[in-house]
Amino acid sequence: MNLYSGYINHLIDELAALPGIGNKSAQRLAFYIIGMSPERVKSLSDSIADAKAHVHYCKCCQNLTDAEVCPICQDEKRDKSTIMVVENPRDLAAYERTGKYSGLYHVLHGAISPMLGIGPGDIRLKELMERLRDDTVKEVIIATNSSLEGETTAMYISKLIKPVGIRVTRIASGVPVGGDLEYIDEVTLLRALDGRTEL
Amino acid sequence: MNLYSGYINHLIDELAALPGIGNKSAQRLAFYIIGMSPERVKSLSDSIADAKAHVHYCKCCQNLTDAEVCPICQDEKRDKSTIMVVENPRDLAAYERTGKYSGLYHVLHGAISPMLGIGPGDIRLKELMERLRDDTVKEVIIATNSSLEGETTAMYISKLIKPVGIRVTRIASGVPVGGDLEYIDEVTLLRALDGRTEL
Repeated sequence: MNLYSGYINHLIDELAALPGIGNKSAQRLAFYIIGMSPERVKSLSDSIADAKAHVHYCKCCQNLTDAEVCPICQDEKRDKSTIMVVENPRDLAAYERTGKYSGLYHVLHGAISPMLGIGPGDIRLKELMERLRDDTVKEVIIATNSSLEGETTAMYISKLIKPVGIRVTRIASGVPVGGDLEYIDEVTLLRALDGRTEL
Repeated sequence: MNLYSGYINHLIDELAALPGIGNKSAQRLAFYIIGMSPERVKSLSDSIADAKAHVHYCKCCQNLTDAEVCPICQDEKRDKSTIMVVENPRDLAAYERTGKYSGLYHVLHGAISPMLGIGPGDIRLKELMERLRDDTVKEVIIATNSSLEGETTAMYISKLIKPVGIRVTRIASGVPVGGDLEYIDEVTLLRALDGRTEL
């Protein structure tokens, strides 16, 4: 089908290749973009190129940053004895939004998944182990997702770190606050039961 | 919240300003884009700038094109005595996909909507009237949407064109093919009844 100009088709193809954007949405976005002011289009196009050009992994925690070391790792007020291990920068952002965690982070950029062929060497585990070499870190909190891959990764990391003599903990799994028991799956209900605490 | 690098925040803001993309999707897309290869990012960024730079309205039918006159208007095999009026290029594409319509089009780029303050002067009506000046066109088929705005626009155009002595028709409104009567709204059912034809 060659209804549109080649430039529009190319833009539609590029947009449809992004996650969560189907062909219909890509068409809608493409026509919207063509209708925007030249300044806004330049700003959008540049923001994509700029983000790619300037953003890279933090030398220390592997979070995305445009500096050598990210603002969290640079922050003198943060507790350097605790590292929370997360799968990706969005998970880090989720914990930062709570405003209650004052330790450092380590972003793995993925989780071990034999199904998808992602092994321990494919995530940023080596960098984590290097951070544990000196005696600063006293506790590693594993906050990978509560999925098969997240649990596998948590188990793997705990087996790796325990021999070093550092405390390894896992965030609690259970019924979400405000969650209705009726609609919660059996595995979560059993997890919540196992993890019950004294009142 | 200044969790991410300024470049990421800027990209997220730009993406979230697009229609149908919320803040969460924008974050997801931004991180995905940063993780893409530099070649793919350049291709995406360039496709946006290129589409805006090269695509404009066809001098004749107002469809989007990178030539002065779009391929449909240039096509010698098409029936120049019929013009189908549509609201936007996606509607044109929908009729082109049927492969059965051989006339020309006219893209209004909108519909009259007093609610949104869009009047007859804000859509490409003047250009349509200019095309009707010579005697080539014998029929104008109004294929605006079956919404309040689409119907208003259809009525307005028909009143404008009828005095010129050109035949004005409206695409049929009724039960969609394969549609289950049970789930179709009353207005459509009544429309289908009014538009019934002899068997």
